[in-house]
Amino acid sequence: MRLLIIGFGFIGKELVKALRGKIRLLREIDRDFMVVGAADSKGYIFDAGGLDVDGLSAINRLSEHQGYRAGGSASELINEDLCNVIVEATPTNIKDGEPGLTHIRLALSRGIHVVTPNKGPLVLAFRELTSIAERNSCDLLYEGTVAGAIPIFSLARECLRGDKIIRLSGILNGTTNYILSRMFFEETSFDIALKEAQEKGIAERDPSYDVDGVDAACKVVILANALMKRNAKIGDVERVGIRGVTQEAISLAKKANYAIKLIGTIDRRLEVAPKLVPINHPLCVHGTLNAIHIEMDLAGEITLVGYGAGKETVSAVLNDLITVLKRRSKQKH
Amino acid sequence: MRLLIIGFGFIGKELVKALRGKIRLLREIDRDFMVVGAADSKGYIFDAGGLDVDGLSAINRLSEHQGYRAGGSASELINEDLCNVIVEATPTNIKDGEPGLTHIRLALSRGIHVVTPNKGPLVLAFRELTSIAERNSCDLLYEGTVAGAIPIFSLARECLRGDKIIRLSGILNGTTNYILSRMFFEETSFDIALKEAQEKGIAERDPSYDVDGVDAACKVVILANALMKRNAKIGDVERVGIRGVTQEAISLAKKANYAIKLIGTIDRRLEVAPKLVPINHPLCVHGTLNAIHIEMDLAGEITLVGYGAGKETVSAVLNDLITVLKRRSKQKH
Repeated sequence: MRLLIIGFGFIGKELVKALRGKIRLLREIDRDFMVVGAADSKGYIFDAGGLDVDGLSAINRLSEHQGYRAGGSASELINEDLCNVIVEATPTNIKDGEPGLTHIRLALSRGIHVVTPNKGPLVLAFRELTSIAERNSCDLLYEGTVAGAIPIFSLARECLRGDKIIRLSGILNGTTNYILSRMFFEETSFDIALKEAQEKGIAERDPSYDVDGVDAACKVVILANALMKRNAKIGDVERVGIRGVTQEAISLAKKANYAIKLIGTIDRRLEVAPKLVPINHPLCVHGTLNAIHIEMDLAGEITLVGYGAGKETVSAVLNDLITVLKRRSKQKH
Repeated sequence: MRLLIIGFGFIGKELVKALRGKIRLLREIDRDFMVVGAADSKGYIFDAGGLDVDGLSAINRLSEHQGYRAGGSASELINEDLCNVIVEATPTNIKDGEPGLTHIRLALSRGIHVVTPNKGPLVLAFRELTSIAERNSCDLLYEGTVAGAIPIFSLARECLRGDKIIRLSGILNGTTNYILSRMFFEETSFDIALKEAQEKGIAERDPSYDVDGVDAACKVVILANALMKRNAKIGDVERVGIRGVTQEAISLAKKANYAIKLIGTIDRRLEVAPKLVPINHPLCVHGTLNAIHIEMDLAGEITLVGYGAGKETVSAVLNDLITVLKRRSKQKH
């Protein structure tokens, strides 16, 4: 399999670093595996004979690489003569999904498998993209889009095959969980906790996407569509952020052994809102951790806890990539 | 695929009840799926044309079923002309693994796939059984042996394919976790908490297997062998139970925001012992819940929480069974 990496930001670079240590594992599954290209927003590098992953992991910008074609567009490389699988890791854009949406549509329509941690395209066009994938017998895997390194989609697909999921709820945004945890443990105000999160690089300068629950709502949409066969859009999620959560409310809750957490829920309704969670409940995790609570007909309740963002997300991308390789190597034999 | 169920105790009966509701799902994967036989310690029923699962789920003892062959032995049915897959759910016996060990050896050596929630054979003969399975191109799946409904083995196999597991730790026994939780929340003594657990049917009359950490040690052995390629035996596990945990120790810990939990650890050493766990750590779950904390090179830390015993274990058995059906239906096409 020939891999094209689109997007050379944080995740793209972390993926290349991880691939360095895992290339032998990947070649055990598919001895022809290689990285043939990498693209950023301004150009690309491509070598049909395979790029040297060690070299690629040593650079900070693609333009530093020998043979960088400035002005070239990723779409030129999304061609089945050039690659069989892409990792689409351009920045998330939930307005129009671009440029990821175009890349993913193009790849799937040309029979190229897609692995992506990019939420935008999945939030805006879940059903369209899964249909194109199905029509073209392609894999479209997106484990990294929700709750980072927590393998919720592959878990449901491979580990709970006989169960019916009845309800999902979770802490799906690490930034807001960090802020609420600081308010809970340090008894700081929302404003101070937010400022601290911004100083640490946990919250953006414009924190709206996180603190108003937009990011969590995106994840609710993907979870609902992928695991509960809904056809949800972002507008279907009733959404309240954490700006209104006061130190007083948190203190009162704490005295009664509850914490206030921003919870995404997929039930009859889709919702993101601050909720009281008993401090002894498995969902009640702190700091930047994410947690997903699954209610099922047979297994009862299972909770998964892990890192919701950061370099750990590469675990999800790599697992998806290996899934593509394994499925294809089976078909070959 | 033709399924033979061996053991008609709690799990065997719960499996049959679950199969009733899932038969359509199973036939979508393998249209020839049927339950051809069921055996208990005193006899069996068998019908090459398939047993009626509705009828089977309505009885309490196999001997109530029409055509019950008293005196017949399960081994007579473990024959590839009669079945392709067995669910081995006889009672756990960690002294000599019997009768499960004989059933599993026989099945695998005859090319019959094995799904089992029976710890004994896996604890005593892990490497032997996995070798026979490999030699005969058979599946040997045992998700139900550790932490009940928590799908730890399929998670590692299917969802964390690029990760290397560095360390595992967990609350692997629900009975002791119930006792320690009562001591933590209700400030009762060990003796009272144990008695209460016995009255509720959570602890056995002879509680030694649970409270002395033997059950948790069995799970440590299986986890170490399955997920970290060890060749561990039960004697390799350093083991301390919870009889020595006093109410005073728990109260002191609690004041410092710790709970005392019986933790199984797979690191360089294999260990089961009471440990201090910060009450805000994801592993710190209460009641009969189990939890497993996995440390990996890419995903960092993931914690899974769920029911460690009871009818929820059927979820694990059914997932294994579906895995067998899916793998075979792929080979057919």
